[in-house]
Amino acid sequence: MNPYPKGTLRVAMIGHRFMGAAHSQAWRTAPRFFDLPADIQMSVIVGRDPIAAADAAARLGWREVATDWREVVARDDIDIVDICVPSDLHAPIALAALSAGKHVLCEKPLSNTVDEAVAMAEAAAEARQVGVQALLGFTYRRVPAIQLARSIVARGDLGEIRQTRATYLQDWLADPSAPMSWRLDRSVAGSGALGDLGSHAVDAIQFITDQHVTCVAGALRTFVPTRPWPQGRDHESAEGQVTVDDAAVFVAEMSGGTLATFEATRMATGRKNHLRLEVNGSRGSLLFDLEDLNSLWVYDGRAGSDAGFRRILVTEPTHPYVGAWWPPGHGLGYEHAFSHQVVDFVNAICTGDAVAPDFSDGLQVQRVLEAVERSVDSKGWEAVMS
Amino acid sequence: MNPYPKGTLRVAMIGHRFMGAAHSQAWRTAPRFFDLPADIQMSVIVGRDPIAAADAAARLGWREVATDWREVVARDDIDIVDICVPSDLHAPIALAALSAGKHVLCEKPLSNTVDEAVAMAEAAAEARQVGVQALLGFTYRRVPAIQLARSIVARGDLGEIRQTRATYLQDWLADPSAPMSWRLDRSVAGSGALGDLGSHAVDAIQFITDQHVTCVAGALRTFVPTRPWPQGRDHESAEGQVTVDDAAVFVAEMSGGTLATFEATRMATGRKNHLRLEVNGSRGSLLFDLEDLNSLWVYDGRAGSDAGFRRILVTEPTHPYVGAWWPPGHGLGYEHAFSHQVVDFVNAICTGDAVAPDFSDGLQVQRVLEAVERSVDSKGWEAVMS
Amino acid sequence: MNPYPKGTLRVAMIGHRFMGAAHSQAWRTAPRFFDLPADIQMSVIVGRDPIAAADAAARLGWREVATDWREVVARDDIDIVDICVPSDLHAPIALAALSAGKHVLCEKPLSNTVDEAVAMAEAAAEARQVGVQALLGFTYRRVPAIQLARSIVARGDLGEIRQTRATYLQDWLADPSAPMSWRLDRSVAGSGALGDLGSHAVDAIQFITDQHVTCVAGALRTFVPTRPWPQGRDHESAEGQVTVDDAAVFVAEMSGGTLATFEATRMATGRKNHLRLEVNGSRGSLLFDLEDLNSLWVYDGRAGSDAGFRRILVTEPTHPYVGAWWPPGHGLGYEHAFSHQVVDFVNAICTGDAVAPDFSDGLQVQRVLEAVERSVDSKGWEAVMS
Amino acid sequence: MNPYPKGTLRVAMIGHRFMGAAHSQAWRTAPRFFDLPADIQMSVIVGRDPIAAADAAARLGWREVATDWREVVARDDIDIVDICVPSDLHAPIALAALSAGKHVLCEKPLSNTVDEAVAMAEAAAEARQVGVQALLGFTYRRVPAIQLARSIVARGDLGEIRQTRATYLQDWLADPSAPMSWRLDRSVAGSGALGDLGSHAVDAIQFITDQHVTCVAGALRTFVPTRPWPQGRDHESAEGQVTVDDAAVFVAEMSGGTLATFEATRMATGRKNHLRLEVNGSRGSLLFDLEDLNSLWVYDGRAGSDAGFRRILVTEPTHPYVGAWWPPGHGLGYEHAFSHQVVDFVNAICTGDAVAPDFSDGLQVQRVLEAVERSVDSKGWEAVMS
Repeated sequence: MNPYPKGTLRVAMIGHRFMGAAHSQAWRTAPRFFDLPADIQMSVIVGRDPIAAADAAARLGWREVATDWREVVARDDIDIVDICVPSDLHAPIALAALSAGKHVLCEKPLSNTVDEAVAMAEAAAEARQVGVQALLGFTYRRVPAIQLARSIVARGDLGEIRQTRATYLQDWLADPSAPMSWRLDRSVAGSGALGDLGSHAVDAIQFITDQHVTCVAGALRTFVPTRPWPQGRDHESAEGQVTVDDAAVFVAEMSGGTLATFEATRMATGRKNHLRLEVNGSRGSLLFDLEDLNSLWVYDGRAGSDAGFRRILVTEPTHPYVGAWWPPGHGLGYEHAFSHQVVDFVNAICTGDAVAPDFSDGLQVQRVLEAVERSVDSKGWEAVMS
Repeated sequence: MNPYPKGTLRVAMIGHRFMGAAHSQAWRTAPRFFDLPADIQMSVIVGRDPIAAADAAARLGWREVATDWREVVARDDIDIVDICVPSDLHAPIALAALSAGKHVLCEKPLSNTVDEAVAMAEAAAEARQVGVQALLGFTYRRVPAIQLARSIVARGDLGEIRQTRATYLQDWLADPSAPMSWRLDRSVAGSGALGDLGSHAVDAIQFITDQHVTCVAGALRTFVPTRPWPQGRDHESAEGQVTVDDAAVFVAEMSGGTLATFEATRMATGRKNHLRLEVNGSRGSLLFDLEDLNSLWVYDGRAGSDAGFRRILVTEPTHPYVGAWWPPGHGLGYEHAFSHQVVDFVNAICTGDAVAPDFSDGLQVQRVLEAVERSVDSKGWEAVMS
Repeated sequence: MNPYPKGTLRVAMIGHRFMGAAHSQAWRTAPRFFDLPADIQMSVIVGRDPIAAADAAARLGWREVATDWREVVARDDIDIVDICVPSDLHAPIALAALSAGKHVLCEKPLSNTVDEAVAMAEAAAEARQVGVQALLGFTYRRVPAIQLARSIVARGDLGEIRQTRATYLQDWLADPSAPMSWRLDRSVAGSGALGDLGSHAVDAIQFITDQHVTCVAGALRTFVPTRPWPQGRDHESAEGQVTVDDAAVFVAEMSGGTLATFEATRMATGRKNHLRLEVNGSRGSLLFDLEDLNSLWVYDGRAGSDAGFRRILVTEPTHPYVGAWWPPGHGLGYEHAFSHQVVDFVNAICTGDAVAPDFSDGLQVQRVLEAVERSVDSKGWEAVMS
Repeated sequence: MNPYPKGTLRVAMIGHRFMGAAHSQAWRTAPRFFDLPADIQMSVIVGRDPIAAADAAARLGWREVATDWREVVARDDIDIVDICVPSDLHAPIALAALSAGKHVLCEKPLSNTVDEAVAMAEAAAEARQVGVQALLGFTYRRVPAIQLARSIVARGDLGEIRQTRATYLQDWLADPSAPMSWRLDRSVAGSGALGDLGSHAVDAIQFITDQHVTCVAGALRTFVPTRPWPQGRDHESAEGQVTVDDAAVFVAEMSGGTLATFEATRMATGRKNHLRLEVNGSRGSLLFDLEDLNSLWVYDGRAGSDAGFRRILVTEPTHPYVGAWWPPGHGLGYEHAFSHQVVDFVNAICTGDAVAPDFSDGLQVQRVLEAVERSVDSKGWEAVMS
């Protein structure tokens, strides 16, 4: 069943900035802590600028450098394509890779438009028929505390889920003199906080509750409409136009009857990476904060007047993924979830089992974001298309 | 200027349950810790049931008992009418009292309808012309940490305010077997979590930011539509119909350009009295939680990489109201804000100075709530009327 | 059995500063929230300075003023003597009052010396034979969370208690320019942080664990040996000599085999009233912090890998004393424990039942403090005398 | 100056369990995130059991396997010896390696006895004359928050340091059925919680304050004197004798006049890796907890009544080591400090600059622990020898 028995999976990574560094560390580290059914070879790194790419290859530990992703995804000696570039390029790369029979790991959000996402999900479903896997990088699903949260909901400890609130707060744009970047250009990034952070919040809540958002009403806001260009680049004007949202807020209904609120912002001064998830059920509640990612707070109302939110340090060997790492209380960091993602992806490739989130999950999140944007235009509630 | 020089203010309190107990403690305690310009006499307590009222008078420390509020508010020997009954009675009592020239302290929310609120605000404005004061009991304004929050915003420490999020979470209705009460009957209570808790959240955010909500879009939800009647009462049916919301969520825009989210719920298992207020400005942020009411968390971005949310223990003698109480670190409880309310009210009565929140503030909050309800009906954004 | 059926207990309070204010509020408030078997009359307040005492009487609500405590404790129309003066006066007043057949509530620490404490405990034991009660004001025992902590230990939830750590940290002397006061004069205060704060820490740990300290080794330190006199007083020298400790630390063994550490300091910058108590048993642990007094953190190891410290909000009606106050989540403040003390004292007076902590408990704590001082002199471990 | 220009440092690691895994991850990861002046080659792993060692080599990524450390430390093609075995073997391996001219990285505690430590420190000092470096693995010094803590003290923000309290609490021995291990055998481990955890606490406090412990008084306790042998091993008796302490507590004086308390325990139920460090100065304080290692709490009293403990998220690019990793708020885990240790060690090897903690620092900590043991025997204060 395992097409790579005692074999080697050869990876090509497209892109080499922040996400490229995180993925490289995961490809290198996962086999050292987990028993994988195949070996990993970090074969090729791809970047448009050959000098920068060569430097990244040396620094991040890749064997070869290439500048044209089209050539690379067609190579016979590549098994996995790992897409770490801005989201406007997700669709073309993923479609080409899937069509070439490569397993694809794609950073989130899946794409900039629902149309692209539909095409990607269809291509992935088709590829799946012939054993090709496509995994979407909603990496936070693989933070042990978030996995534990999902189990706690699934086993009914919280009773019927009634309300959730998710805020993903950062502050790197709070200062109006923070410079322009591709993330602020709608043509490259698709949207701003909504797609970048909101997609994580939506995926996390849907993952934990096993419900999906069905309709939404919200608002987007760009507080700082123009920003200086980064130093060292020539531009026609002194400042660039910010064409994406700085902040997104919306209320939502979910498939299981849950009432939800979501917020994503890059303007919440003092909040650095504050994905805060709260879930209230008829019997209990839970709370997670990504800035303290080794903890999960759980309230079990069945304890009566002795009940209280308890901070589970999710560092016990019985917790998801944790046994492979350190003793209790020796916390994990941001990048560990990327190693877990590699583990699950490689296992799925070798077993042929389904792996989530797949591209159809990514499409569904894209549709939620699109409904939020429609709701802003219509100034009313909008259903998530399906 | 002071119409009560060395004199005595004689108080009649209408109602004697939870709020009656809190107000009584405040009338009794305020003069013991603060220098007031007049003495307080706890003259008459009013309750429909003479036995219960007599019992309350003894327990809460009132001189006389009465059963007819109309008679009491007309008495010459009463200076202040303190309204602690369900909100359907606020308007008739307040209007009668103001018209009789009594100073009025009215529990929140101001009324069950905007129409009533308009009448009350008009009557109060008129009464104010002749030196009669009307104060609305948004008591949390007088928690020292919330006062400090407002000062911090006012002096510009946070820069331009961009976003706020307010959640007022309780859980006393999470259990479906929690019995019916007047608070769940729309004809008495006006609304559910929206009016009871949401009004506090709206007032607190408006108070801290000095902005007002201008338009809203939201949802209301009743998760448990019928509930058992309390024991010992005969009813036609086994269960009563819950005619108010269990939970309310809404997004909002504010007058100064701030983007806001609000939530009020009685179904958030594990949250007992969790009014959580967060304000993000261009330079800093603040955070308050009523379950830890002696603290205010403030982030001042000007500290650069050494910045962090700091927990100010709002128990220093220089903090608002605190000097009258205990040494630093010796925290205040829930009821202290009611004493502060008495202090400010009595001072306003004796000086003739304005006191806030007045009935026009209450009307404005009522209009916000009404816009939320309209938004639920229209399934879209609705402007707050003015 | 009740010697005061439907009767009135007439109280004389000696002293009227910080503790006098707290006690007055308790005498006034307790009967309003609790059903007491007798009425309370706040009869006489006693202070050396007649003007200050008269002012205090008016402010704090006492009927009469007196300047000579000896006369007052001998009066027939006084039932209870409440001692709120510096600890050098505890012994003479308490002995006179007990000998006159008055019930005595005495602030902590019991006395400045073990000899005085022995005399007081003997007098109290004798008085007890004739139905006279003596209660020592280790008020923190009556914080609901501390009562709950003791129950949790008593019912065995934590298993065998092995270790405790108690730190009582304040910072009002951290600034070297903080002025001299009677609390820094050994002849009046007996000791510094050791007696003032350490006595609370010792009593609280002994109360929670139901064990007593048997031997100790520690250190005392005076970081700022001289301090300016308060403004407005003439003194021979510009600065006064601090003759007590600023900080005390000691390790200890307890009767049940528990290993304990204690620290008391007035120099811990940023800590305002931080009595932090941690207890570790073979099955679980608990943690309390007086700066967040409505919470108790409990760890129950029997929950396995889902275990975690949970924050019990000790505001439920079933929690000790809490039912008399406010709904869940509406926290109590510093002074509420004083009302609970009045409730328990008045009940004990009327029923004749034992009430704790009595003077023998205070003597035992005094012996612990004395052993700490001996250990400083001997530079070694010293047994607590019994 | 750099003896390894563009060269390669070849590492032999002795031992391959918990610490071996952490060190391997660091040797592999450091060069990927930091610019190092030499390349690293993970050359040889050494373990007594050839099968286990071979397995470890494959898993942890070492080129060769060896079973005799004596041979390995003598090899010409080895530059660095990394000692990750129980502490009874630290001295012989380190002495042999230094004598062979190898740079040595040695896990803590330095040794089991002061005599060994003296010999090691002398050998290291001698080796240093010829450019050989020896670094002791008090890794927590390289947690960014602890580095920041030291800077804050060094730049005087806290004023004069007066008190510290350090507790290192774990609970893996709380359960009496937890099995015997080499860590509980005095002949192998030297001591129990005292050496394993207490050494970290002492080093951390000394590092942050730049003071050293001068005298101590304390207690050691073994709560569970016998424990079952691990499954699968034959032993003469059913249970093994625990010959080390489960818990150690001591009070201490430090060179700069600071009064300190220390505690180390493996019995604190619910505490997994709770190294809690608190430092109080005349102007401010700081607090660190290893279970939340990306935060540092700092109180700056100069902020007056707006002062408060603020949680600095030590994840900014300007914080020590952090710039090499992730964006703000994306926290580090337990093992990152080991990478920082590699970075500093490799830099020191290449520059010849001093690196700390060196073996004389380890010797000094060993003398503190030895003084604690003497103090237990003498039942009194004991000076730390120098």
